[in-house]
Amino acid sequence: MGNIALAIHGGAGPDSEFVRRNVDRYKQGLQEAATAGYDFLKSGGSALDAVELVVNILENNPIFNAGRGASLNNKGEVDMNASIMNGRDLKAGAVAMIRNVKNPISLARNVMEDTRHVFMAGKGAIDFAKTRQALMMPDSYFITEHRFNDYLQLNQQETEQDLLQKRIQGTVGCVAVDVNGNLAAATSTGGLTNALEGRIGDSCIIGAGTYANNQTCAVSGTGDGELLIRGVVAHSISSLIEFTGCTLQEACDNTVFERCKEFKGDIGVIAVDPKGNIAITYNTERMHRAWAGVDGNVEVRVYGDEG
Amino acid sequence: MGNIALAIHGGAGPDSEFVRRNVDRYKQGLQEAATAGYDFLKSGGSALDAVELVVNILENNPIFNAGRGASLNNKGEVDMNASIMNGRDLKAGAVAMIRNVKNPISLARNVMEDTRHVFMAGKGAIDFAKTRQALMMPDSYFITEHRFNDYLQLNQQETEQDLLQKRIQGTVGCVAVDVNGNLAAATSTGGLTNALEGRIGDSCIIGAGTYANNQTCAVSGTGDGELLIRGVVAHSISSLIEFTGCTLQEACDNTVFERCKEFKGDIGVIAVDPKGNIAITYNTERMHRAWAGVDGNVEVRVYGDEG
Repeated sequence: MGNIALAIHGGAGPDSEFVRRNVDRYKQGLQEAATAGYDFLKSGGSALDAVELVVNILENNPIFNAGRGASLNNKGEVDMNASIMNGRDLKAGAVAMIRNVKNPISLARNVMEDTRHVFMAGKGAIDFAKTRQALMMPDSYFITEHRFNDYLQLNQQETEQDLLQKRIQGTVGCVAVDVNGNLAAATSTGGLTNALEGRIGDSCIIGAGTYANNQTCAVSGTGDGELLIRGVVAHSISSLIEFTGCTLQEACDNTVFERCKEFKGDIGVIAVDPKGNIAITYNTERMHRAWAGVDGNVEVRVYGDEG
Repeated sequence: MGNIALAIHGGAGPDSEFVRRNVDRYKQGLQEAATAGYDFLKSGGSALDAVELVVNILENNPIFNAGRGASLNNKGEVDMNASIMNGRDLKAGAVAMIRNVKNPISLARNVMEDTRHVFMAGKGAIDFAKTRQALMMPDSYFITEHRFNDYLQLNQQETEQDLLQKRIQGTVGCVAVDVNGNLAAATSTGGLTNALEGRIGDSCIIGAGTYANNQTCAVSGTGDGELLIRGVVAHSISSLIEFTGCTLQEACDNTVFERCKEFKGDIGVIAVDPKGNIAITYNTERMHRAWAGVDGNVEVRVYGDEG
C-alpha cells in the first residue's frame, strides 16, 4: 500500500477585493472538496475517481470559476473547458466550448472512456453529452450575480483590442495518487470574464494545464492559460522528473520560476508523485489551494503561509 | 550564416488504392511545396514565413487533406484545424473547428501575432478571421469529389459506435530552420472523413502535433491524432534533446518506436534542429514527405526508399 495524497486549486492570480471579501467562502469550499477527495482515497478509491469527484464538488460550488459560477464570455455566455488524464494508461479526455453540461469534467471523462477520441468541442461535444445521459442544466443555473456584474462592467469598458490582448485566468483542478500508486489529474474552468468568444485556454490541453503519468507525476495548472500552453507546462514538469531525476518540488519550481520566467505572467501548479509527495508552486499574489498527504491533515491556503 | 533546412509531410497511414493511383500527383505537390519553401529560405526568408508559405501551398492543393480538399465530418461539413509555432520566442497560434477560411494556418498565425491568445475555435475564430481580412471561401471551394464520395460511403456504412471508436488521420505539415538559426513548425488538417462533429485532433495542439523551440528542434506530427496528444509527441522529442543530449534522429525514433509503442497506432513526425539536421520517422506503410537540407536537393518519398 502506497502513500495517498491529494492537492487541489481554485485558481491563481492577483489579489482582488472580491477574493478578500470571500476568503472564508473560498477556504470552506477548498476544505470541503479536499476532505471529500482525501476520505475517498483513504477508503481505497482510485485517483481517477477522486479527481473527478473533487472537481465535481468545485464545479458545483458557485464561488469557483468552473461549472456553476463560470465566468461569462464577451457575448455574456457560459463557455467552459475541462480535461482529465489517467496516469496508469495515459488515457485522456478533454472538452472545450461547453455550455449546459452541469459537470464538464465528467463529460471529459466520458470522452476518455466511451470514445477513442481525446478532445471534443462545441455543439458536437454537447450532443455527445446528451447521448451519455450527462446532467444538463439551463444557462440560468450557471450564472451568478457576481459573474454577471463582472461581465456587465468589463463588457462596457473593454474595447475589441483589449479583448485580443487579454490574458485569461481562473480555474479549478485536482491531482491525486491512490493506494495503488496510480496518478490522475483534472482541470476545469469557466475562462475569463468578457473573453473573446471561441478562445480556448490551457485547462483542456493535455500537456499544458493537465498531465498525469504513473512514471513521473500528475499536474494541474492555472494562471495565464496562454503561457501554460506555450510552455507545455504540465508535461515539462513530467519531463524534468523523467530525464533529470529531480524531485517533484524542484521540477515545479524550475518550470514556474526558470523555464517560464521569460513569459512574465501568472502561473500556478499543483502536483503529486507516485510516492505521495505534494508540490505547489505559484508566482502570483494568491493561489487558492488545499492539500492532504501522509499525515492525513487537510491544509488550506489562499495567500502565503497564513495557515 | 547557419545551415538552412526544411521538411514537409502530407500525412502518414496505411496504404490505399487512392494513394497508389495518385502517387504522382502527391509527389508533384510535395516537390512543388518543398522547392518553394527551400528557395524562400535560401533567399534569406524566415523559418516562420517559410512554414506558413509551404502549408499554404499544401492547403491550396486539393490532393492534400487540409484547406481545399479537406475531409468532411459526419455532418458532411468542412471542419479544419491548424497550428503554428515560432521557435525564437515560443509564440504560438492555433485554430480549430474552422470553415470558409481559405488558409487555416494563416489564421493560426493571425491568432499568434494579433492577439495575446494562443488558441481560438469555431464561430469566434471565424468572426476573428473576418476582422483580419482573411480570404474567405464558400463551402464549395473546399469540397472535392474524392472527399465527398468518401463521406457518402462511410456515412452510410459507419454506426455511431464506429464513429466513437475511430482513429483520426491525415494532415500536412512543415518544419524549417532559417539562415539565422530560427526554427518554426506548422501543421494543418481537414480531419478524417465522417469524423464526429466537434472532434479535435493533434494538429492544433501545441506540444502534440506542433512544437518549435530554437534551443532544441521544430516538429510537426501526423498519424492517429489521439495518440500524439496522449504522448505529447512533439514536446517529448524536444524534451529528449534538451535533457538527454541525444540527436534529433534518436529523439524522433525513440519517441515513435519506444515511448509510443504501447499505443499501437500510426505516428509519423518530421523535425529539424538548429544545425540544419533533418529527421523523419514513421511507423506506417506510407508517409508523404519531402525534405531539403545542406546539399540543396529536394527529396520526395511516399513509401520506403523508392527515391
